[in-house]
Amino acid sequence: MTEPAKHGGAILGVDIGGTKVAVGLVDREGKILMQGRKPMVANGTAEAAFEAVTDAIDSLAANFHSIGICAPGPLDPKTGVVLNPPNLPCWRNFPLAEKITAAYHVPVKVDNDANAAALAETRWGAARGFRYVFYATIGTGIGTGIVFDGCIYHGNTGSAGEGGHVSIDYRGPLCPCGKRGCIEVLAAGPAIGARARAKLGAGSKSMILDLARGDVTAVTSEFVGKAYAAGDALAREILEETVDVLVPWLGNIVDLLDPDVLVMGGGVAAMLQPFFAEIKNRLPGWCVNPRANEIPLRMAYYGADAGIAGGAALCSE
Amino acid sequence: MTEPAKHGGAILGVDIGGTKVAVGLVDREGKILMQGRKPMVANGTAEAAFEAVTDAIDSLAANFHSIGICAPGPLDPKTGVVLNPPNLPCWRNFPLAEKITAAYHVPVKVDNDANAAALAETRWGAARGFRYVFYATIGTGIGTGIVFDGCIYHGNTGSAGEGGHVSIDYRGPLCPCGKRGCIEVLAAGPAIGARARAKLGAGSKSMILDLARGDVTAVTSEFVGKAYAAGDALAREILEETVDVLVPWLGNIVDLLDPDVLVMGGGVAAMLQPFFAEIKNRLPGWCVNPRANEIPLRMAYYGADAGIAGGAALCSE
Repeated sequence: MTEPAKHGGAILGVDIGGTKVAVGLVDREGKILMQGRKPMVANGTAEAAFEAVTDAIDSLAANFHSIGICAPGPLDPKTGVVLNPPNLPCWRNFPLAEKITAAYHVPVKVDNDANAAALAETRWGAARGFRYVFYATIGTGIGTGIVFDGCIYHGNTGSAGEGGHVSIDYRGPLCPCGKRGCIEVLAAGPAIGARARAKLGAGSKSMILDLARGDVTAVTSEFVGKAYAAGDALAREILEETVDVLVPWLGNIVDLLDPDVLVMGGGVAAMLQPFFAEIKNRLPGWCVNPRANEIPLRMAYYGADAGIAGGAALCSE
Repeated sequence: MTEPAKHGGAILGVDIGGTKVAVGLVDREGKILMQGRKPMVANGTAEAAFEAVTDAIDSLAANFHSIGICAPGPLDPKTGVVLNPPNLPCWRNFPLAEKITAAYHVPVKVDNDANAAALAETRWGAARGFRYVFYATIGTGIGTGIVFDGCIYHGNTGSAGEGGHVSIDYRGPLCPCGKRGCIEVLAAGPAIGARARAKLGAGSKSMILDLARGDVTAVTSEFVGKAYAAGDALAREILEETVDVLVPWLGNIVDLLDPDVLVMGGGVAAMLQPFFAEIKNRLPGWCVNPRANEIPLRMAYYGADAGIAGGAALCSE
């Protein structure tokens, strides 16, 4: 065995997803010093899934003083117990923090990925210096996190900050969560892809179809983003429609929470970044808050590494 | 001048409305010992409106150690400056706390009525002992307040907790605030009255019309409440439809804030109290929070005196 690299002052950030475990060593300034990943074993035993995590950690062969983990929810951030995750059914009531502590003899924190990423943005990223942070990651789903005075707002049972399931259309399309009109079912990647497929299926002409090699069923939000970047009019229309739902949703968030910054991350947010100025301009029309026009809307600092940075941020007090 | 009554340990609560100023002396347990009211002079000068407030205070002829005031918003709770109230235009940028302090030489706190009432419920009422309180008063409008760990959550600029303007129908009816589909425009008293008038106008038979002496245009939510209490089927239908929008709205609140209690006050909430069990039962269907079924839904303790108690609660640390 080679001598482990010396990073005694660093935190190990772990991002447990349904298909992979990403790990990274993060310094006090939120810089990711090294990282690695291993496949996740989601459909086996609890122990096999746990070994996938320890394999990933061990693969870094690094020193660290604590471990922060983004794990599939729902979970209890106080105890670090994973409760009943749809993406990792073998971990029902799994005491993740306790078992990792037993294996590595360091302090361990566990939270969901959006909460953790919100904290990483507050500590080291786009929300640094802000006190009332609302963070959203928009990709396959929409996860959100609230950070007040530098601490994740968990609410009473640890389930606060589920802004992706705030409904703005109570008679609207059914979300997989069982509610109707959640912003996730209206504005996340799959909704953008579905909107594109519907318009193309109805005969709209667009570069999107060429990118999908003429196969409407193969169209995803990624193709919409690429086509928009290349100047495609239909792609612009689809993204404008996404803005049309994001603005009322952000208005709801602002009127309840009165944040001092809004941060958006994830692949769809990156795709929508050219519309941030428009979103910011339209937001006061969807807020009773008389100072809504002053709230900055920022792109997240962390991209694909948000989970690693988020995990580490949990241990960065 | 008669000798003032001695209540040196009491707080003066003041509730400034568009048409009246209500004042009350409140003890340490939230009991209203005595109260009075004077007409408000809303359309005159700032000074005349201020004198209406001091007249009301002086009319009690009582001793108090501090004054807490519910004032028309928007206002700055930190400084006690009333900013730009639509119901009291003469008080634009009016330093209410400063002027009351100068007149009475006691500490003064100012907040909006829903925030203050939420605090009164937390200190002395239906939310006593809870840490994550969401309060809503449903009447002519819907005002809401959030209390975390015994303190009003104000957000960054003092405009947090405007839950009445959370939209659940972004293409829905226009709210006077300028947004569409706010719960206020869907579920407050005027919406209930309008729904009744529409159904009656379309020919529905109901006791509501008798209560309004056969004049559809005279129908208000109060008649709906009275007819429901007397067993009227159309009134039940109208209130059920109100429940249909309140449940998704409360689901949004729960998924963002994960409160440990929901408290509802105001005349429409009183009318809806027979539906509270149904609302509580349906709420988990509109929440991703796996423990939404455990959240108590309670009627507010304070009724018409909520503003007086709320004002006093501001000074009750």
